[in-house]
Amino acid sequence: MKRGTMAVVSIGPGDAGNLTPRAREALEAAEVIAGYGAYLQQIDALLGGKLIIESGMHGELERCRKALEQYRGGRRTCLVSGGDAGVYGLAGLVLELMSPEEQAALRVLPGVTSATACAALLGAPLTHDFAVISLSDLLTSEHLIEKRLKMAAEGDFVTVLYNPQSIKRRRLFSRAAEIFLAHRSPSTPVGLVREAYRDGQRVMLGTLEELASQNWVDMKTTVLIGNSETFSSGGRMITPRGYGG
Amino acid sequence: MKRGTMAVVSIGPGDAGNLTPRAREALEAAEVIAGYGAYLQQIDALLGGKLIIESGMHGELERCRKALEQYRGGRRTCLVSGGDAGVYGLAGLVLELMSPEEQAALRVLPGVTSATACAALLGAPLTHDFAVISLSDLLTSEHLIEKRLKMAAEGDFVTVLYNPQSIKRRRLFSRAAEIFLAHRSPSTPVGLVREAYRDGQRVMLGTLEELASQNWVDMKTTVLIGNSETFSSGGRMITPRGYGG
Repeated sequence: MKRGTMAVVSIGPGDAGNLTPRAREALEAAEVIAGYGAYLQQIDALLGGKLIIESGMHGELERCRKALEQYRGGRRTCLVSGGDAGVYGLAGLVLELMSPEEQAALRVLPGVTSATACAALLGAPLTHDFAVISLSDLLTSEHLIEKRLKMAAEGDFVTVLYNPQSIKRRRLFSRAAEIFLAHRSPSTPVGLVREAYRDGQRVMLGTLEELASQNWVDMKTTVLIGNSETFSSGGRMITPRGYGG
Repeated sequence: MKRGTMAVVSIGPGDAGNLTPRAREALEAAEVIAGYGAYLQQIDALLGGKLIIESGMHGELERCRKALEQYRGGRRTCLVSGGDAGVYGLAGLVLELMSPEEQAALRVLPGVTSATACAALLGAPLTHDFAVISLSDLLTSEHLIEKRLKMAAEGDFVTVLYNPQSIKRRRLFSRAAEIFLAHRSPSTPVGLVREAYRDGQRVMLGTLEELASQNWVDMKTTVLIGNSETFSSGGRMITPRGYGG
Protein backbone atom coordinates (compact mmCIF):
# COMPACT_ATOMS: atom_id res chain seq x y z
CA MET A 1 0.00 0.00 0.00
CA LYS A 2 1.22 3.49 -0.83
CA ARG A 3 2.25 5.30 2.30
CA GLY A 4 1.23 8.94 2.76
CA THR A 5 3.17 11.66 4.51
CA MET A 6 1.94 13.90 7.29
CA ALA A 7 3.31 17.30 8.26
CA VAL A 8 2.09 19.89 10.74
CA VAL A 9 3.01 23.17 9.13
CA SER A 10 3.41 26.54 10.88
CA ILE A 11 2.42 29.42 8.61
CA GLY A 12 3.41 32.29 10.94
CA PRO A 13 1.20 35.21 11.94
CA GLY A 14 -0.51 37.47 9.42
CA ASP A 15 0.67 37.57 5.85
CA ALA A 16 2.91 35.44 3.65
CA GLY A 17 5.93 37.54 4.68
CA ASN A 18 6.26 35.28 7.72
CA LEU A 19 5.93 31.93 5.90
CA THR A 20 9.27 30.09 5.92
CA PRO A 21 10.61 28.46 2.72
CA ARG A 22 10.50 25.06 4.46
CA ALA A 23 6.79 25.47 5.23
CA ARG A 24 6.05 26.76 1.73
CA GLU A 25 7.78 23.77 0.14
CA ALA A 26 5.76 21.32 2.20
CA LEU A 27 2.51 23.08 1.27
CA GLU A 28 3.43 23.14 -2.42
CA ALA A 29 4.15 19.41 -2.37
CA ALA A 30 0.94 18.52 -0.51
CA GLU A 31 -2.10 16.77 -2.01
CA VAL A 32 -4.30 17.59 0.98
CA ILE A 33 -4.25 20.69 3.19
CA ALA A 34 -6.37 20.87 6.33
CA GLY A 35 -6.89 23.93 8.50
CA TYR A 36 -9.09 26.49 10.17
CA GLY A 37 -10.71 28.82 7.61
CA ALA A 38 -8.81 31.99 8.50
CA TYR A 39 -5.46 30.19 8.26
CA LEU A 40 -6.36 28.71 4.87
CA GLN A 41 -7.19 32.20 3.61
CA GLN A 42 -3.74 33.31 4.65
CA ILE A 43 -2.15 30.75 2.28
CA ASP A 44 -4.83 31.04 -0.41
CA ALA A 45 -2.27 31.27 -3.21
CA LEU A 46 -1.00 27.76 -2.38
CA LEU A 47 -4.32 25.92 -2.25
CA GLY A 48 -5.02 25.45 -5.99
CA GLY A 49 -5.48 21.84 -7.16
CA LYS A 50 -5.44 20.37 -3.68
CA LEU A 51 -8.07 18.72 -1.56
CA ILE A 52 -8.92 21.24 1.16
CA ILE A 53 -10.30 20.23 4.54
CA GLU A 54 -11.67 23.28 6.26
CA SER A 55 -13.28 23.46 9.64
CA GLY A 56 -14.45 26.18 11.97
CA MET A 57 -13.17 27.27 15.35
CA HIS A 58 -13.33 24.51 17.98
CA GLY A 59 -13.29 21.96 15.15
CA GLU A 60 -9.75 20.94 16.07
CA LEU A 61 -10.37 17.28 16.82
CA GLU A 62 -12.47 16.74 13.69
CA ARG A 63 -9.90 18.50 11.52
CA CYS A 64 -7.04 16.40 12.86
CA ARG A 65 -9.00 13.17 12.43
CA LYS A 66 -9.90 13.98 8.83
CA ALA A 67 -6.31 14.91 8.03
CA LEU A 68 -5.11 11.63 9.55
CA GLU A 69 -7.61 9.68 7.42
CA GLN A 70 -6.12 11.26 4.30
CA TYR A 71 -2.59 10.47 5.43
CA ARG A 72 -3.56 6.90 6.23
CA GLY A 73 -5.17 6.69 2.78
CA GLY A 74 -1.75 7.32 1.27
CA ARG A 75 -1.80 11.05 0.54
CA ARG A 76 0.73 13.79 1.20
CA THR A 77 -1.11 15.68 3.90
CA CYS A 78 -0.41 19.01 5.63
CA LEU A 79 -2.25 20.34 8.63
CA VAL A 80 -1.67 24.08 8.97
CA SER A 81 -1.60 26.25 12.07
CA GLY A 82 -1.29 30.03 12.38
CA GLY A 83 1.83 31.31 14.13
CA ASP A 84 3.88 28.33 15.30
CA ALA A 85 1.98 25.03 15.23
CA GLY A 86 3.70 23.90 18.40
CA VAL A 87 2.64 26.86 20.56
CA TYR A 88 -0.96 26.16 21.64
CA GLY A 89 -1.28 24.64 18.16
CA LEU A 90 -2.29 21.27 16.79
CA ALA A 91 1.06 19.47 16.72
CA GLY A 92 0.35 17.90 20.11
CA LEU A 93 -3.19 16.77 19.32
CA VAL A 94 -2.11 15.12 16.05
CA LEU A 95 0.64 13.24 17.88
CA GLU A 96 -1.85 12.12 20.53
CA LEU A 97 -4.05 10.63 17.82
CA MET A 98 -1.23 8.73 16.10
CA SER A 99 0.29 5.29 16.59
CA PRO A 100 3.97 5.22 17.67
CA GLU A 101 5.07 4.43 14.09
CA GLU A 102 3.06 7.36 12.79
CA GLN A 103 4.40 9.65 15.52
CA ALA A 104 7.96 8.81 14.54
CA ALA A 105 7.18 9.71 10.91
CA LEU A 106 5.40 13.02 11.59
CA ARG A 107 7.19 16.18 10.47
CA VAL A 108 6.55 19.35 12.42
CA LEU A 109 7.70 22.51 10.63
CA PRO A 110 8.34 25.47 12.92
CA GLY A 111 7.30 29.04 12.26
CA VAL A 112 7.26 32.55 13.65
CA THR A 113 5.12 32.55 16.79
CA SER A 114 2.97 35.45 17.95
CA ALA A 115 5.19 36.22 20.93
CA THR A 116 8.24 37.08 18.85
CA ALA A 117 6.25 38.58 15.96
CA CYS A 118 4.43 40.98 18.28
CA ALA A 119 7.64 41.68 20.18
CA ALA A 120 9.27 42.78 16.91
CA LEU A 121 6.41 45.20 16.22
CA LEU A 122 6.83 46.67 19.70
CA GLY A 123 10.62 46.96 19.61
CA ALA A 124 12.63 44.58 21.79
CA PRO A 125 10.63 43.54 24.86
CA LEU A 126 11.71 39.86 24.85
CA THR A 127 15.47 40.18 25.06
CA HIS A 128 15.50 38.61 28.49
CA ASP A 129 13.93 35.53 30.10
CA PHE A 130 10.21 35.30 29.40
CA ALA A 131 7.09 33.28 30.08
CA VAL A 132 4.20 32.57 27.74
CA ILE A 133 0.77 31.97 29.28
CA SER A 134 -2.62 31.46 27.63
CA LEU A 135 -5.54 32.95 29.57
CA SER A 136 -8.04 30.64 27.86
CA ASP A 137 -9.66 28.47 30.52
CA LEU A 138 -11.36 26.15 28.02
CA LEU A 139 -8.68 23.50 28.46
CA THR A 140 -6.81 24.69 31.58
CA SER A 141 -8.14 25.35 35.06
CA GLU A 142 -8.34 28.96 36.25
CA HIS A 143 -6.45 27.88 39.32
CA LEU A 144 -3.42 26.73 37.32
CA ILE A 145 -3.49 29.84 35.13
CA GLU A 146 -3.48 32.09 38.20
CA LYS A 147 -0.66 30.12 39.74
CA ARG A 148 1.44 30.52 36.60
CA LEU A 149 0.69 34.25 36.43
CA LYS A 150 1.95 34.57 40.01
CA MET A 151 5.13 32.63 39.32
CA ALA A 152 5.85 34.67 36.17
CA ALA A 153 5.24 37.92 38.05
CA GLU A 154 7.34 36.90 41.04
CA GLY A 155 10.18 35.61 38.83
CA ASP A 156 10.33 38.96 37.02
CA PHE A 157 9.79 37.28 33.67
CA VAL A 158 8.76 39.38 30.71
CA THR A 159 5.35 37.79 30.20
CA VAL A 160 3.39 37.18 27.04
CA LEU A 161 -0.34 36.56 27.33
CA TYR A 162 -2.03 34.64 24.51
CA ASN A 163 -5.85 34.55 24.21
CA PRO A 164 -6.13 37.29 26.84
CA GLN A 165 -9.85 37.97 26.77
CA SER A 166 -13.07 36.96 25.00
CA ILE A 167 -16.58 38.38 25.15
CA LYS A 168 -17.59 35.67 27.59
CA ARG A 169 -14.37 35.53 29.52
CA ARG A 170 -12.98 38.72 31.08
CA ARG A 171 -12.15 37.82 34.66
CA LEU A 172 -8.70 36.31 34.15
CA PHE A 173 -7.51 39.33 32.19
CA SER A 174 -8.22 41.78 34.98
CA ARG A 175 -6.90 39.21 37.46
CA ALA A 176 -3.64 39.08 35.48
CA ALA A 177 -3.31 42.86 35.74
CA GLU A 178 -3.89 42.65 39.52
CA ILE A 179 -1.32 39.91 39.98
CA PHE A 180 1.37 41.79 38.08
CA LEU A 181 0.55 45.05 39.86
CA ALA A 182 1.26 43.27 43.14
CA HIS A 183 4.82 42.54 41.94
CA ARG A 184 5.75 45.38 39.55
CA SER A 185 5.53 49.11 39.29
CA PRO A 186 2.30 50.53 37.79
CA SER A 187 4.49 52.27 35.22
CA THR A 188 5.87 48.96 33.86
CA PRO A 189 5.55 49.10 30.06
CA VAL A 190 2.92 46.86 28.51
CA GLY A 191 2.61 46.27 24.77
CA LEU A 192 -0.57 45.22 23.02
CA VAL A 193 -0.70 43.97 19.44
CA ARG A 194 -3.91 43.06 17.64
CA GLU A 195 -4.07 41.37 14.23
CA ALA A 196 -0.29 41.31 13.82
CA TYR A 197 0.83 41.56 10.19
CA ARG A 198 -2.78 41.74 8.95
CA ASP A 199 -4.95 44.56 7.67
CA GLY A 200 -6.19 46.38 10.72
CA GLN A 201 -3.03 45.75 12.71
CA ARG A 202 -2.98 47.77 15.93
CA VAL A 203 0.11 48.26 18.10
CA MET A 204 -0.18 50.04 21.43
CA LEU A 205 2.34 50.77 24.12
CA GLY A 206 0.99 51.60 27.57
CA THR A 207 1.59 50.81 31.22
CA LEU A 208 0.61 48.05 33.58
CA GLU A 209 -1.68 50.47 35.38
CA GLU A 210 -3.67 51.03 32.18
CA LEU A 211 -3.79 47.38 31.15
CA ALA A 212 -7.10 46.19 32.59
CA SER A 213 -9.03 49.13 31.10
CA GLN A 214 -8.11 48.26 27.49
CA ASN A 215 -11.50 46.98 26.42
CA TRP A 216 -10.49 46.28 22.83
CA VAL A 217 -8.21 43.45 23.96
CA ASP A 218 -9.63 40.24 22.52
CA MET A 219 -8.60 36.77 21.36
CA LYS A 220 -6.72 38.28 18.41
CA THR A 221 -4.59 40.42 20.73
CA THR A 222 -1.26 39.45 22.25
CA VAL A 223 -0.19 41.19 25.46
CA LEU A 224 3.45 41.68 26.50
CA ILE A 225 4.18 42.77 30.06
CA GLY A 226 7.71 44.07 30.67
CA ASN A 227 10.02 42.96 33.46
CA SER A 228 11.27 45.36 36.17
CA GLU A 229 13.94 46.78 33.82
CA THR A 230 11.82 47.22 30.69
CA PHE A 231 11.44 50.84 29.60
CA SER A 232 9.89 52.72 26.72
CA SER A 233 11.57 55.27 24.48
CA GLY A 234 10.79 56.56 21.01
CA GLY A 235 7.50 54.69 21.17
CA ARG A 236 9.28 51.36 21.52
CA MET A 237 9.26 48.81 24.34
CA ILE A 238 12.81 47.85 25.32
CA THR A 239 14.10 45.26 27.77
CA PRO A 240 17.84 45.77 28.29
CA ARG A 241 19.98 42.67 28.12
CA GLY A 242 22.80 44.26 30.04
CA TYR A 243 25.42 44.75 27.30
CA GLY A 244 25.47 48.45 28.00
CA GLY A 245 26.18 48.15 31.72
CA MET B 1 21.25 64.63 3.81
CA LYS B 2 20.20 61.22 2.57
CA ARG B 3 18.62 59.26 5.37
CA GLY B 4 19.54 55.59 5.78
CA THR B 5 17.35 52.77 7.02
CA MET B 6 18.09 50.37 9.82
CA ALA B 7 16.60 46.92 10.34
CA VAL B 8 17.38 44.20 12.82
CA VAL B 9 16.76 41.01 10.89
CA SER B 10 16.09 37.56 12.33
CA ILE B 11 17.47 34.81 10.12
CA GLY B 12 16.10 31.82 12.03
CA PRO B 13 18.12 28.83 13.25
CA GLY B 14 20.26 26.70 10.94
CA ASP B 15 19.73 26.80 7.21
CA ALA B 16 17.89 29.09 4.79
CA GLY B 17 14.73 26.95 5.14
CA ASN B 18 13.88 29.03 8.20
CA LEU B 19 14.51 32.48 6.68
CA THR B 20 11.21 34.32 6.22
CA PRO B 21 10.45 36.16 2.94
CA ARG B 22 10.23 39.45 4.87
CA ALA B 23 13.74 38.97 6.25
CA ARG B 24 15.11 37.87 2.87
CA GLU B 25 13.67 40.97 1.18
CA ALA B 26 15.27 43.28 3.71
CA LEU B 27 18.64 41.56 3.26
CA GLU B 28 18.40 41.72 -0.53
CA ALA B 29 17.65 45.45 -0.39
CA ALA B 30 20.48 46.22 2.06
CA GLU B 31 23.71 48.04 1.22
CA VAL B 32 25.37 47.03 4.50
CA ILE B 33 24.95 43.80 6.48
CA ALA B 34 26.48 43.41 9.93
CA GLY B 35 26.62 40.24 11.98
CA TYR B 36 28.49 37.57 13.84
CA GLY B 37 30.57 35.39 11.48
CA ALA B 38 28.56 32.17 11.83
CA TYR B 39 25.28 34.01 11.11
CA LEU B 40 26.76 35.69 8.04
CA GLN B 41 27.84 32.27 6.73
CA GLN B 42 24.25 31.12 7.07
CA ILE B 43 23.10 33.82 4.61
CA ASP B 44 26.22 33.68 2.44
CA ALA B 45 24.19 33.64 -0.78
CA LEU B 46 22.77 37.09 0.01
CA LEU B 47 26.01 38.91 0.83
CA GLY B 48 27.35 39.59 -2.68
CA GLY B 49 28.01 43.25 -3.55
CA LYS B 50 27.32 44.52 -0.04
CA LEU B 51 29.54 46.04 2.61
CA ILE B 52 29.90 43.35 5.27
CA ILE B 53 30.66 44.16 8.90
CA GLU B 54 31.73 41.00 10.64
CA SER B 55 32.71 40.60 14.23
CA GLY B 56 33.43 37.73 16.55
CA MET B 57 31.62 36.46 19.60
CA HIS B 58 31.30 39.06 22.37
CA GLY B 59 31.74 41.78 19.74
CA GLU B 60 28.07 42.77 20.07
CA LEU B 61 28.55 46.36 21.14
CA GLU B 62 31.17 47.07 18.47
CA ARG B 63 29.02 45.45 15.78
CA CYS B 64 25.96 47.50 16.71
CA ARG B 65 27.96 50.74 16.82
CA LYS B 66 29.49 50.13 13.41
CA ALA B 67 26.10 49.27 11.93
CA LEU B 68 24.63 52.46 13.41
CA GLU B 69 27.45 54.51 11.86
CA GLN B 70 26.54 53.13 8.45
CA TYR B 71 22.86 53.89 8.98
CA ARG B 72 23.67 57.41 10.14
CA GLY B 73 25.85 57.79 7.07
CA GLY B 74 22.75 57.28 4.94
CA ARG B 75 22.95 53.60 4.02
CA ARG B 76 20.35 50.83 4.04
CA THR B 77 21.71 48.77 6.91
CA CYS B 78 20.72 45.36 8.30
CA LEU B 79 22.02 43.86 11.49
CA VAL B 80 21.40 40.10 11.51
CA SER B 81 20.81 37.74 14.41
CA GLY B 82 20.44 33.95 14.43
CA GLY B 83 17.08 32.59 15.52
CA ASP B 84 14.84 35.51 16.49
CA ALA B 85 16.73 38.79 16.95
CA GLY B 86 14.45 39.74 19.83
CA VAL B 87 15.14 36.66 21.97
CA TYR B 88 18.48 37.28 23.68
CA GLY B 89 19.41 39.00 20.41
CA LEU B 90 20.64 42.43 19.45
CA ALA B 91 17.33 44.26 18.89
CA GLY B 92 17.43 45.61 22.44
CA LEU B 93 21.04 46.76 22.36
CA VAL B 94 20.55 48.60 19.05
CA LEU B 95 17.52 50.40 20.48
CA GLU B 96 19.49 51.34 23.59
CA LEU B 97 22.13 52.98 21.41
CA MET B 98 19.65 55.00 19.33
CA SER B 99 18.04 58.42 19.75
CA PRO B 100 14.23 58.44 20.18
CA GLU B 101 13.77 59.43 16.51
CA GLU B 102 16.00 56.58 15.40
CA GLN B 103 14.22 54.15 17.73
CA ALA B 104 10.88 55.04 16.19
CA ALA B 105 12.27 54.37 12.69
CA LEU B 106 13.94 51.02 13.48
CA ARG B 107 12.39 47.95 11.88
CA VAL B 108 12.69 44.66 13.72
CA LEU B 109 11.88 41.60 11.56
CA PRO B 110 10.87 38.53 13.54
CA GLY B 111 12.01 34.99 12.86
CA VAL B 112 11.85 31.42 14.02
CA THR B 113 13.39 31.21 17.48
CA SER B 114 15.33 28.24 18.84
CA ALA B 115 12.62 27.32 21.32
CA THR B 116 9.98 26.57 18.69
CA ALA B 117 12.46 25.25 16.12
CA CYS B 118 13.86 22.72 18.57
CA ALA B 119 10.37 21.91 19.83
CA ALA B 120 9.35 21.01 16.27
CA LEU B 121 12.30 18.62 15.95
CA LEU B 122 11.29 16.95 19.21
CA GLY B 123 7.56 16.68 18.45
CA ALA B 124 5.20 18.94 20.37
CA PRO B 125 6.62 19.79 23.80
CA LEU B 126 5.53 23.47 23.82
CA THR B 127 1.78 23.17 23.34
CA HIS B 128 1.16 24.55 26.80
CA ASP B 129 2.41 27.52 28.85
CA PHE B 130 6.19 27.75 28.81
CA ALA B 131 9.14 29.72 30.16
CA VAL B 132 12.40 30.54 28.40
CA ILE B 133 15.49 31.04 30.55
CA SER B 134 19.11 31.63 29.56
CA LEU B 135 21.66 30.02 31.88
CA SER B 136 24.40 32.40 30.79
CA ASP B 137 25.52 34.42 33.80
CA LEU B 138 27.62 36.86 31.78
CA LEU B 139 24.89 39.49 31.91
CA THR B 140 22.52 38.15 34.58
CA SER B 141 23.23 37.26 38.19
CA GLU B 142 23.23 33.60 39.19
CA HIS B 143 20.82 34.49 41.94
CA LEU B 144 18.19 35.78 39.51
CA ILE B 145 18.66 32.81 37.17
CA GLU B 146 18.12 30.38 40.06
CA LYS B 147 15.05 32.27 41.19
CA ARG B 148 13.54 32.06 37.71
CA LEU B 149 14.33 28.35 37.47
CA LYS B 150 12.47 27.81 40.74
CA MET B 151 9.44 29.82 39.61
CA ALA B 152 9.30 27.97 36.29
CA ALA B 153 9.57 24.61 38.05
CA GLU B 154 6.98 25.46 40.68
CA GLY B 155 4.55 26.89 38.08
CA ASP B 156 4.76 23.65 36.08
CA PHE B 157 5.88 25.53 32.97
CA VAL B 158 7.42 23.60 30.11
CA THR B 159 10.86 25.19 30.33
CA VAL B 160 13.34 25.98 27.59
CA LEU B 161 16.96 26.56 28.57
CA TYR B 162 19.11 28.64 26.20
CA ASN B 163 22.91 28.73 26.58
CA PRO B 164 22.75 25.84 29.05
CA GLN B 165 26.43 25.15 29.60
CA SER B 166 29.88 26.22 28.48
CA ILE B 167 33.31 24.79 29.15
CA LYS B 168 33.88 27.32 31.91
CA ARG B 169 30.36 27.38 33.26
CA ARG B 170 28.76 24.11 34.35
CA ARG B 171 27.29 24.82 37.79
CA LEU B 172 23.99 26.38 36.75
CA PHE B 173 23.17 23.50 34.44
CA SER B 174 23.40 20.86 37.16
CA ARG B 175 21.65 23.28 39.52
CA ALA B 176 18.78 23.55 37.01
CA ALA B 177 18.43 19.77 36.98
CA GLU B 178 18.34 19.75 40.82
CA ILE B 179 15.71 22.48 40.98
CA PHE B 180 13.41 20.73 38.53
CA LEU B 181 13.90 17.36 40.23
CA ALA B 182 12.62 18.95 43.43
CA HIS B 183 9.32 19.77 41.69
CA ARG B 184 8.86 17.09 38.99
CA SER B 185 9.13 13.36 38.54
CA PRO B 186 12.59 12.02 37.57
CA SER B 187 10.89 10.44 34.53
CA THR B 188 9.75 13.84 33.15
CA PRO B 189 10.75 13.92 29.47
CA VAL B 190 13.59 16.23 28.55
CA GLY B 191 14.55 17.03 24.97
CA LEU B 192 17.97 18.18 23.86
CA VAL B 193 18.71 19.62 20.45
CA ARG B 194 22.20 20.62 19.31
CA GLU B 195 22.94 22.50 16.07
CA ALA B 196 19.28 22.62 15.01
CA TYR B 197 18.83 22.60 11.22
CA ARG B 198 22.59 22.47 10.63
CA ASP B 199 24.97 19.71 9.58
CA GLY B 200 25.68 17.70 12.69
CA GLN B 201 22.21 18.26 14.13
CA ARG B 202 21.61 16.04 17.17
CA VAL B 203 18.19 15.44 18.74
CA MET B 204 17.89 13.45 21.95
CA LEU B 205 14.94 12.59 24.12
CA GLY B 206 15.67 11.54 27.68
CA THR B 207 14.45 12.12 31.20
CA LEU B 208 14.98 14.74 33.87
CA GLU B 209 16.93 12.19 35.88
CA GLU B 210 19.44 11.82 33.05
CA LEU B 211 19.74 15.54 32.29
CA ALA B 212 22.74 16.60 34.36
CA SER B 213 24.90 13.74 33.06
CA GLN B 214 24.63 14.82 29.39
CA ASN B 215 28.13 16.15 29.02
CA TRP B 216 27.78 17.07 25.35
CA VAL B 217 25.32 19.84 26.24
CA ASP B 218 26.97 23.13 25.26
CA MET B 219 26.13 26.67 24.13
CA LYS B 220 24.80 25.33 20.82
CA THR B 221 22.32 23.07 22.60
CA THR B 222 18.77 23.97 23.56
CA VAL B 223 17.16 22.06 26.42
CA LEU B 224 13.39 21.53 26.78
CA ILE B 225 12.05 20.22 30.10
CA GLY B 226 8.48 18.91 30.00
CA ASN B 227 5.69 19.86 32.40
CA SER B 228 4.00 17.32 34.69
CA GLU B 229 1.81 16.05 31.82
CA THR B 230 4.45 15.79 29.11
CA PHE B 231 5.03 12.24 27.87
CA SER B 232 7.08 10.50 25.22
CA SER B 233 5.83 8.11 22.56
CA GLY B 234 7.22 7.01 19.20
CA GLY B 235 10.42 8.86 20.07
CA ARG B 236 8.58 12.18 20.29
CA MET B 237 8.09 14.56 23.22
CA ILE B 238 4.42 15.47 23.61
CA THR B 239 2.70 17.93 25.95
CA PRO B 240 -1.07 17.39 25.76
CA ARG B 241 -3.18 20.52 25.43
CA GLY B 242 -6.30 18.83 26.72
CA TYR B 243 -8.39 18.51 23.55
CA GLY B 244 -8.52 14.76 24.02
CA GLY B 245 -9.90 14.84 27.57
